Amino acid sequence: MAIPVFFVENPDKSDVLSADDSFHANKVLRLKSGDAIYILDGAGKKFRAKLLVSDARKSTYSNIILEIEEKTNKNLLNLWIAPTKQMERMEWMVEKCTEMGIRSIGFFQSKNSERKEIKIQRLEKIVISAMKQSKQLFKPQLNPIISFDDLLKKLEKSFELKGFAYISENNNLTIRSFANMKQESIALIGPEGDFTPNEIIKLNSHGFKGFSLGNSILRTETAGILTCASFNLSN
Amino acid sequence: MAIPVFFVENPDKSDVLSADDSFHANKVLRLKSGDAIYILDGAGKKFRAKLLVSDARKSTYSNIILEIEEKTNKNLLNLWIAPTKQMERMEWMVEKCTEMGIRSIGFFQSKNSERKEIKIQRLEKIVISAMKQSKQLFKPQLNPIISFDDLLKKLEKSFELKGFAYISENNNLTIRSFANMKQESIALIGPEGDFTPNEIIKLNSHGFKGFSLGNSILRTETAGILTCASFNLSN
Repeated sequence: MAIPVFFVENPDKSDVLSADDSFHANKVLRLKSGDAIYILDGAGKKFRAKLLVSDARKSTYSNIILEIEEKTNKNLLNLWIAPTKQMERMEWMVEKCTEMGIRSIGFFQSKNSERKEIKIQRLEKIVISAMKQSKQLFKPQLNPIISFDDLLKKLEKSFELKGFAYISENNNLTIRSFANMKQESIALIGPEGDFTPNEIIKLNSHGFKGFSLGNSILRTETAGILTCASFNLSN
Repeated sequence: MAIPVFFVENPDKSDVLSADDSFHANKVLRLKSGDAIYILDGAGKKFRAKLLVSDARKSTYSNIILEIEEKTNKNLLNLWIAPTKQMERMEWMVEKCTEMGIRSIGFFQSKNSERKEIKIQRLEKIVISAMKQSKQLFKPQLNPIISFDDLLKKLEKSFELKGFAYISENNNLTIRSFANMKQESIALIGPEGDFTPNEIIKLNSHGFKGFSLGNSILRTETAGILTCASFNLSN
């Protein structure tokens, strides 16, 4: 059997697996005290450790034995998206983006938004599971939903390249050339009803450039996936 | 209200909407006799027509009034994939690939395949719905599941560029450079358990080149989406 992988935030300060992981290790994988495990810290490091206590509620592991791998984060995309009505579509997108690799995913509420709430905790679980499954060393940061205006304020002083998905006949900036600049970037994906003209004026005045995702009319989550794929392919 | 869009195969030989579309037109959209509709033939053409009889079981439309749009198919990717255990994942992939644009999607069964059956009819509905939603003029062809060996035989005499997704340290052909050749292509995505060494030898001897999808370990359906995205972005 392949050595099982667990996620622990700040593993140097902890020697306990989460309740879910403890259950999984003990009841599903039937691991025993002394079994080898891998720990991902979600910040670029992978460690090898040993289970000390295998318990369905609280498993502990030994001090980290060996650092196996360390990487720097090459994921350049910070995605902000207006969430879809069906939460399932966002969950799928978050899973796919995590698998491909992404720096952060956040949500905003604009004029035509269809959803005002996001349960970040459920998405966190999806992120961690996809991260372990795809052996990503970096856990994408999830940012809770904020208003469009607050988002612009929040990003005002950031130095990243800024863009937003925009369908227009005379749009020369493709997502491909945007991603090819190979800088840390912020990309906004509007709701199904799109950004309003007023929001686009605000975006422009805040230094955001509209990029095109091609000629197809994509669902919101597909636009998010294609944007992420495009950064992934430019790496 | 935007003019509603319907799909009719060979609309020049028919003047009837499908049973599903008739119901949708009559009961959901509440269209009346005389209302304007668009017809997509899925082969590059969009027509304007007029409803003659609006009936929940059998709606008919007038001879086609006007050809609105005609395009040639620029989708170069023919995807063949080993379907996942959870059919939902394939359905999602088919929807996303249709939105982005793809020439055909087919299924094969190899040594490590997790699923031996595919209900093409259900996928057809998803394809048509995604096609209408994204205003694609081309309906991707869906090919029923066949065995790995039959697939190789079937593709033996085809002139398309042939590749398969393959994770290897020393793989120099990226999906990006594969897609950038801008030729009609066949891309095979293996099952979660991957192709067997024996299958890879067969692929090589049949002229298939292994391409890399990057360093992440992707789920089957994510590999399909990333392959499709990469062709879409090279257009």
